[in-house]
Amino acid sequence: MNENMQNQTNPNVSVDCVVFGFDGSELKVLLLQRDLRDNLDLDDDTLVLPGDLIVDDEDLSEAATRILKGLTGLKNIFLEQIGAFGNPSRLSKEKDRVWLEAIRQNPEARVITIGYFALINIKNYKIKPAGFAKHVTWSDYHHVSDLGFDHNEIVDAAKQKLRDKLYREPVGFELLPRKFSLHQLYTLYSEIMDAEIDRRNFRRRMLKTGFLKETDEFQEGVPHKPAKLYTFVKKEFDNVSKTNFKFY
Amino acid sequence: MNENMQNQTNPNVSVDCVVFGFDGSELKVLLLQRDLRDNLDLDDDTLVLPGDLIVDDEDLSEAATRILKGLTGLKNIFLEQIGAFGNPSRLSKEKDRVWLEAIRQNPEARVITIGYFALINIKNYKIKPAGFAKHVTWSDYHHVSDLGFDHNEIVDAAKQKLRDKLYREPVGFELLPRKFSLHQLYTLYSEIMDAEIDRRNFRRRMLKTGFLKETDEFQEGVPHKPAKLYTFVKKEFDNVSKTNFKFY
Repeated sequence: MNENMQNQTNPNVSVDCVVFGFDGSELKVLLLQRDLRDNLDLDDDTLVLPGDLIVDDEDLSEAATRILKGLTGLKNIFLEQIGAFGNPSRLSKEKDRVWLEAIRQNPEARVITIGYFALINIKNYKIKPAGFAKHVTWSDYHHVSDLGFDHNEIVDAAKQKLRDKLYREPVGFELLPRKFSLHQLYTLYSEIMDAEIDRRNFRRRMLKTGFLKETDEFQEGVPHKPAKLYTFVKKEFDNVSKTNFKFY
Repeated sequence: MNENMQNQTNPNVSVDCVVFGFDGSELKVLLLQRDLRDNLDLDDDTLVLPGDLIVDDEDLSEAATRILKGLTGLKNIFLEQIGAFGNPSRLSKEKDRVWLEAIRQNPEARVITIGYFALINIKNYKIKPAGFAKHVTWSDYHHVSDLGFDHNEIVDAAKQKLRDKLYREPVGFELLPRKFSLHQLYTLYSEIMDAEIDRRNFRRRMLKTGFLKETDEFQEGVPHKPAKLYTFVKKEFDNVSKTNFKFY
């Protein structure tokens, strides 16, 4: 962020982004290790979500897009709001305070943050840490560490939102390669839904939706019998009445 | 709000509440007519949602509860966050600006608002307008007028959230009398879901959930044959696995 934009930041509102990725077997969350600058003598390995203050003349989703791109290089990805997080003590942890005092013009200001979540297929993107992001790491969703600020709460809310959304919209495909096996799709749904899903039922219901198109290709380089690959046909979903539709 | 609290308000964050009510046939939204004070010479009949700036040391849901009570007298009601609304031009309509300049310490500040929605059975509550609320009115959801600020957008988002929630949770009962007929329940669901619902299917599926208990009472004072009354047994819903549950 240049000096000019810095001057226009709103001291009271930030955005934080939960980027979910899928590596074929596990749901992952993108986390940043913050760079503490040379002037700070603190051993801080706390991980945080990509996030920052909004600029005063931008919309919230624009802010999320700008900040995510600035810290990780990610752009043109699925991004949707989770909601607002405003616990008055969300910035009060000691290590977070030290960090805020080093980087913010108004470190004492109360900040409400607006959560966003994004979905990407990990293999399609190369992450380039910049700004305060010293390193980036993909953490297994089920083993996310003790994050800075209230970011664990934001990750949990994002997961809940993703799960609820999965029932009504085919968002899972954002996380998959363009061509995937039914087993990959099943694994992804199991990870997101945190539920026992009947495997044969799943296969039958998914094929019945009409949005999955069988290709004439098969998996390559797998130790087992290669499975048929499918694609998602968005056009077919666009034609469906959304009012009563349940994807699963 | 007293002078002390006024001083502690956060100039950049407000909450706005969409209170839905049901009168037995239509879904309604509670709207306020704002009091323009004697010093304002403006003919303003713009309706708005109950809302105001947050106080700096309160949580967002506390703010929603306080503000709703202060403007309408409503308390102890179902209240849940919709999300954040932050279009940079959301306060730029001329009549809204005049009003803000009359009542706010920092009328030029950019305000992000956090939307909440509430559900009540209209007949159970008596609304007492106070604060800037000169009058309150229940507007039919389908004919909400051109509201102040971005409040139409907030009402639409609240309706969407209510509809999505209805598939997974028995929130509809918040809007009904304790004892209701299946026809009342059907009418409510039709209003919220904006969809053609098959009447016989609805009856069968609702009774199958196990949460509806038949009482031995019947409707009174109706011109047609009185219908059997039912109640919702929350305990039965609490016992159900929420993971895969679809209420309709």
